[in-house]
Amino acid sequence: MAGDPEQDLDHGRVRDLNSAFYASHEAKDFDAMAALWSHGKDVVCIHPGWPILRGWEAVGESWRRIFAGPAENQFIVTNEQLNIGQGVAWITLDENLMSASGTGTIAATNVFLKIQGEWKVVHHHGSPVAAQRKRPAP
Amino acid sequence: MAGDPEQDLDHGRVRDLNSAFYASHEAKDFDAMAALWSHGKDVVCIHPGWPILRGWEAVGESWRRIFAGPAENQFIVTNEQLNIGQGVAWITLDENLMSASGTGTIAATNVFLKIQGEWKVVHHHGSPVAAQRKRPAP
Repeated sequence: MAGDPEQDLDHGRVRDLNSAFYASHEAKDFDAMAALWSHGKDVVCIHPGWPILRGWEAVGESWRRIFAGPAENQFIVTNEQLNIGQGVAWITLDENLMSASGTGTIAATNVFLKIQGEWKVVHHHGSPVAAQRKRPAP
Repeated sequence: MAGDPEQDLDHGRVRDLNSAFYASHEAKDFDAMAALWSHGKDVVCIHPGWPILRGWEAVGESWRRIFAGPAENQFIVTNEQLNIGQGVAWITLDENLMSASGTGTIAATNVFLKIQGEWKVVHHHGSPVAAQRKRPAP
């Protein structure tokens, strides 16, 4: 759909929002994270291994608690794919985590909704990717 | 948005498609599953613990292999929430699995896209919910 300036802008806005999501996570900055999300009752967050959290009250509280903890994570995002429809976008990617306790990969789905002209995060789902079996020695 | 007949129809169509997804999974019916999905290069599937699969070729092959295996699963779907935008819908739910080897819960995100007037599955992401700690005895 080359040549649609509004759609090109939306692509950039959604990618920027997705980047800001991981920047706020790395920085453990609750206010920055909160500003990126819709605060509606229908937002959803599924942290790796967690049950489904519904509504900003529960989702925001989860970020507050996670950021209050000791973990210091660096996210290296790879394998990113953006899908975009009319006012709804979703990105799938690998979160490659580097932390003091080791490394690991989380496969993530992030959904973004254009609400009154502004893109917001409405859904985050992360799931641990099982460690690959080592190849047999040559 | 009560009173919009087309939107009411879309809600029903997406819920029916989601139900058919689990029915085809239980029945291990590849042709039924394949008919529900878009066969585009941008569809995405993240099975529990798996890396991201992209494109119908890889996604379809994963279903073919899963259905060829010995597992017989019954899905009891609970905690379902439908979000719907213009031509894009996403459902989050708990897949409560009953199998010969035990029980477990998968938190799932399913995304649906209206393509040339017909809703199709374009994304499935399932992640295991860690077993709840037992409550202390009263």
